[in-house]
Amino acid sequence: MHYKLTVQYDGSNFLGWQLQPQGPTIQGELESAVARLFGAPARVTAAGRTDAGVHALGQVACFHAARELAPQDVLRALNALTPPDIAISDVAVVPDDFDPRRHAVSRQYRYHIWTQRWRSPFWHRFSWHVWADLDVEAMRAAAATLLGEHDFSSFQAADCDAAHAVRRVLRSELEIEDGQLLYTVEATAFLRHMVRNLIGTLVEVGRGTRSVTEFRGLLELRDRTCAGATAPAQGLFLVAVTYD
Amino acid sequence: MHYKLTVQYDGSNFLGWQLQPQGPTIQGELESAVARLFGAPARVTAAGRTDAGVHALGQVACFHAARELAPQDVLRALNALTPPDIAISDVAVVPDDFDPRRHAVSRQYRYHIWTQRWRSPFWHRFSWHVWADLDVEAMRAAAATLLGEHDFSSFQAADCDAAHAVRRVLRSELEIEDGQLLYTVEATAFLRHMVRNLIGTLVEVGRGTRSVTEFRGLLELRDRTCAGATAPAQGLFLVAVTYD
Repeated sequence: MHYKLTVQYDGSNFLGWQLQPQGPTIQGELESAVARLFGAPARVTAAGRTDAGVHALGQVACFHAARELAPQDVLRALNALTPPDIAISDVAVVPDDFDPRRHAVSRQYRYHIWTQRWRSPFWHRFSWHVWADLDVEAMRAAAATLLGEHDFSSFQAADCDAAHAVRRVLRSELEIEDGQLLYTVEATAFLRHMVRNLIGTLVEVGRGTRSVTEFRGLLELRDRTCAGATAPAQGLFLVAVTYD
Repeated sequence: MHYKLTVQYDGSNFLGWQLQPQGPTIQGELESAVARLFGAPARVTAAGRTDAGVHALGQVACFHAARELAPQDVLRALNALTPPDIAISDVAVVPDDFDPRRHAVSRQYRYHIWTQRWRSPFWHRFSWHVWADLDVEAMRAAAATLLGEHDFSSFQAADCDAAHAVRRVLRSELEIEDGQLLYTVEATAFLRHMVRNLIGTLVEVGRGTRSVTEFRGLLELRDRTCAGATAPAQGLFLVAVTYD
């Protein structure tokens, strides 16, 4: 049986999705839980390998098991076998050739920027605290220029191993909600650090240190050294992954 | 100068608002911060003495200081002097006779019930996880019977030291939001454990173990032993305090 999991996690205490010898990862916790439930080692793969400190509301993961269990029993058992900062919100049986990464048609991320003059007891672990008065309209205009297909080399991490940097952005919007600035971006796929590099640069537009025209020009430059700093991981959530 | 503070806190790691010799309290942390800022001991009083584990989005507190500082400087300094699970979201100078408890005309609380079959990595410290399929319409009907002035003796903690148990409820509503059931209640004032006792009994109505008519009858009985169990503190937030 091939199982598809929808996974939520508070990434604060993990070294990211992917297995690491140095410490706890989401993949490691899920593989342990699956191995305990089915009594055999299993590989759990995901739609997106989120970085250390990044959170998820709708990560999609997959594993194969020789034994057949009802999805609701897998849901209950895996939730009992994972730590409280990881939860499985849905389990489904999928065809054996289902690949959560290759078959995904889009991913949606959200980034939280806390803009109050005081830090929040509830959001300080889940947002980037930016004290400046940000020009939200300029940030909105800059964000809108990302829509469509572009080469995102300027926003790619130096160690990104993607074959090429062309991605199609389907949604790129800023909204203000409860004292936070939320950036939602949906694309066919993302390069390593792409959302955090976009946010770091959008905040420079918001601060007025970079114009919307300069922001737009970065895509043509295809040079990571020209864009802004990488925003902190803790503000980023993988919200959803879409399949046909 | 008399200062009014609006305070948010994650109550998970505190023994409640009120000073305790056994461990950390919100009042204790604020009094330490005020003493460090003004160089003299100070008493900080609050609109409501929240219990251990209860959170706040809009607690109101007050203190007197011999020295005069601009409100925005007090805000910045107190936020720097308090731990990350406490924040001051607003500071104002008020008349010397302002009493955050006696002058409050109403308090609003919200209680979060997590109703999914899996626990949330983000809400497990801020909600009560109820696994049953709750009859939300019955709970709504029961909640609505609380509106107006009633004797709430049946929902009062045994050790409550209030002179009488008559309170006027201005708002009592349930809504479903992102997989949670939120109960919002606003009243002139609350008895000790009143919201948590109401919630414990409303959940019994939701489970079908108590009818709406029985729920309504509890007010007339004026007997704490007849109502349901006290719901856990962790789901409760003091949302706002209103003044004329």
